[in-house]
Amino acid sequence: MAKELKDLTKRSENYSQWYNELVVKADLAEQSAVRGCMVIKPYGYAIWEKIQRQLDDMFKETGHVNAYFPLLIPKSFLSREAEHVEGFAKECAVVTHYRLKNAEDGSGVVVDPAAKLEEELIIRPTSETIIWNTYKNWIQSYRDLPILCNQWANVFRWEMRTRLFLRTAEFLWQEGHTAHATRQEAEAEAQQMLGVYADFAEKYMAIPVVKGVKSANERFAGAIDTYTIEAMMQDGKALQSGTSHFLGQNFAKAFDVQFVNKENKLEYVWATSWGVSTRLMGALIMTHSDDNGLVLPPHLAPIQVVIVPIYKNEEQLRQIDAKVEGIVARLKALGISVKYDNADNKRPGFKFADYELRGVPVRLVMGGRDLENNTMELMRRDTLEKETRSCDGIEQYVRDLLEEMQNNIYQKALNYRNSRITTADTYDEFKQKIEEGGFILAHWDGTTETEEKIKEETKATIRCIPFDSFVPGDKEPGRCMVTGKTSACRVIFARAY
Amino acid sequence: MAKELKDLTKRSENYSQWYNELVVKADLAEQSAVRGCMVIKPYGYAIWEKIQRQLDDMFKETGHVNAYFPLLIPKSFLSREAEHVEGFAKECAVVTHYRLKNAEDGSGVVVDPAAKLEEELIIRPTSETIIWNTYKNWIQSYRDLPILCNQWANVFRWEMRTRLFLRTAEFLWQEGHTAHATRQEAEAEAQQMLGVYADFAEKYMAIPVVKGVKSANERFAGAIDTYTIEAMMQDGKALQSGTSHFLGQNFAKAFDVQFVNKENKLEYVWATSWGVSTRLMGALIMTHSDDNGLVLPPHLAPIQVVIVPIYKNEEQLRQIDAKVEGIVARLKALGISVKYDNADNKRPGFKFADYELRGVPVRLVMGGRDLENNTMELMRRDTLEKETRSCDGIEQYVRDLLEEMQNNIYQKALNYRNSRITTADTYDEFKQKIEEGGFILAHWDGTTETEEKIKEETKATIRCIPFDSFVPGDKEPGRCMVTGKTSACRVIFARAY
Repeated sequence: MAKELKDLTKRSENYSQWYNELVVKADLAEQSAVRGCMVIKPYGYAIWEKIQRQLDDMFKETGHVNAYFPLLIPKSFLSREAEHVEGFAKECAVVTHYRLKNAEDGSGVVVDPAAKLEEELIIRPTSETIIWNTYKNWIQSYRDLPILCNQWANVFRWEMRTRLFLRTAEFLWQEGHTAHATRQEAEAEAQQMLGVYADFAEKYMAIPVVKGVKSANERFAGAIDTYTIEAMMQDGKALQSGTSHFLGQNFAKAFDVQFVNKENKLEYVWATSWGVSTRLMGALIMTHSDDNGLVLPPHLAPIQVVIVPIYKNEEQLRQIDAKVEGIVARLKALGISVKYDNADNKRPGFKFADYELRGVPVRLVMGGRDLENNTMELMRRDTLEKETRSCDGIEQYVRDLLEEMQNNIYQKALNYRNSRITTADTYDEFKQKIEEGGFILAHWDGTTETEEKIKEETKATIRCIPFDSFVPGDKEPGRCMVTGKTSACRVIFARAY
Repeated sequence: MAKELKDLTKRSENYSQWYNELVVKADLAEQSAVRGCMVIKPYGYAIWEKIQRQLDDMFKETGHVNAYFPLLIPKSFLSREAEHVEGFAKECAVVTHYRLKNAEDGSGVVVDPAAKLEEELIIRPTSETIIWNTYKNWIQSYRDLPILCNQWANVFRWEMRTRLFLRTAEFLWQEGHTAHATRQEAEAEAQQMLGVYADFAEKYMAIPVVKGVKSANERFAGAIDTYTIEAMMQDGKALQSGTSHFLGQNFAKAFDVQFVNKENKLEYVWATSWGVSTRLMGALIMTHSDDNGLVLPPHLAPIQVVIVPIYKNEEQLRQIDAKVEGIVARLKALGISVKYDNADNKRPGFKFADYELRGVPVRLVMGGRDLENNTMELMRRDTLEKETRSCDGIEQYVRDLLEEMQNNIYQKALNYRNSRITTADTYDEFKQKIEEGGFILAHWDGTTETEEKIKEETKATIRCIPFDSFVPGDKEPGRCMVTGKTSACRVIFARAY
């Protein structure tokens, strides 16, 4: 067994450390020399590229186009929307100068004080302000609407405590920004994109998510409503995996974006924004992986099948090479990404452990006996089950198996999640259950005061007011577990990443 | 004729203004509220996405993988490579603080002086330093080599005079950064990537390029050799369209990146870097477009075919819709991107001018007579020639025509370029010819002094020492046109963007 694998902390010992180690050992990402900024390594980036490509296709299918807006935002723009500035001004990177010069003592370069900007620029923490300032020039009439733009970009938020993928100062994301003529249309757009995110999470990432709306306290700064998809990690904590905001006319008013409607009257434009980020990588890793390393859903695995030969001598290797060549071609013809690893500088045992660590869904092994028998040993990563199969038709078998695995890991995550959704009717019961983790459906009086009291006392937050029902009666009215005041329905509480 | 089109300045009147107007009128890009930063609009970004997708495929075919490195670079990193800092420190955006706070007078937000960074951070102007600092941890042995990474990213250089796509403070690009065990391998890589760029320029952008090596004066800051592809615009000026650098061991030494070679000895790693940027958009626009607007090579056109109906009444429109539906489906089945524009809020004449302005390669029109005759009127954008064709088999005809057009606009650009490559044997002749534009092959004594004298007196620079021969005898030795000293071969001079 490879050294790297042996060293991986077990989830049951320390889930947090297991995650941190796995991200690095599986070559997904690492810390950089710049505090809080990560390097996304090629294997990690290959997964992100698959996420990007699929989401991008789904955005385009729903009528969206890509564009690109500036990295830097004039400081004054942040102040234009009152709530927005409170949410984002506190943690941003500020550009104050535009030139360096040689230090007089020859020690290197220093900031040139003569090159101070008149107005400081902020590295975008999110782009509503610069984009709505741009849309002002794009929109005059209802005929210019809707605008359905998305951008793939890097953003920057000066986070104090960072963790690879989950919370980094710089991260990659997409941000959709749409402009509409009516409130109804904008609200429908925000809901539609939440649906796209939920579909993507479930069908590609194999992560079941709860769709719902955030409480006022957890809303995006500047939104009327924030919709969210919430996933459950294997430690029972919640991970907010994507959000879609109905922004009302807040940004249109802040940047004076009006249009002439069909009745020939001036009206402010309605807006949405929605985004997912490299945080999804964290959700992917934490939902499915095990003590042997990553478990990747086949739909997002950069390498879906690895083939490893076991041989006594060069002659035998050549025979196996020849045999495998056809199998590789047939797998590729079915659209399956396959790697044949016949490198001679690593032993098979090392390779096995390494590909397990990296979460390659299917491993095929061919040894001398297999060569004689026209067979291969197949191992599936999700269950670690092995079987010996004939080489004839193995490509169809693998194709079907990949689909079965995709469904299996989704079902496994769904069963786990559902088994950890519970209810609490009293605050004492809640306090006890929250220690065990999971999602707790409880009644809440709808006030920020109560929400903050609960957060302070239990570290649990309202993840969302779910759209769907999870236990009988959760949509019926009741009494707040803390204050006893009336509550319209149960909401989901959890500790969260 | 649409207002936008009528207003487009003619190339012969003012080429520079024609370009500036065209970029904006064709909805490719516009200035933003941030000095020197552009907004890439959806239509422009759609072309950039096609460029990205194709290049990315070509990088992967040559064994490269993508990764992502931090946006910000510690100031001290820039100083590590002596020439590099001279080239890049002067024009960079400097982050000095990490927080804003509310102004005491309530006027908005101000930089929080308590949140000053110990070491300033620079927005990457290029990533050699942060990447080689990272590679240090990735490379121990020759077994870890080569590393063949590329990154798609935004970079920032504080340019004083900016023009959309051609020179902007922020721009999008890819930067490849490779690490090798031997000098030979690194040099071959730098040459290979130059070849990839040239192939891409010629086959997809339909732009003929001269491949060559830069003079010492024009090299990338920190490189041993810079290879370049140089294109000629319609005003006879050169546009450097891509560069590939052999970096020797300069960055490995600056960041102390050594590896144990096969002989078990420590050695510094050999490096290359190579990049193309959104500047390619400028090259694309300026090479092919005409006084009617954009001319796009079919391989990069977001919409390859537009179909416009001309109808007398709703009933006729419905008949045309029904007829066109099948044609759209058959075009799409051949992989052709097609838009059927039956919007009723614009007149056909407006649509014609608009799609010409946007450079859609093929326009098909169906009117009432066409409907009776089973025909369509076809116009090709490159020559503006019209013909009437039967609807039967029109999809194959269009497919073949798109390929013919791709070749035609390349050939047109090549003929133009070749007609404007000339020689000069005396400095007087050179001074006269450089006023007329074009590429001038002349002898030069190889010194930076002479090169700078020529630049000062004529605004012409050495674009490259070309690999190929363009006129008889250009690879033979001669005498420098300025100093009379010996010269190994003719080099290409031009005024440049």
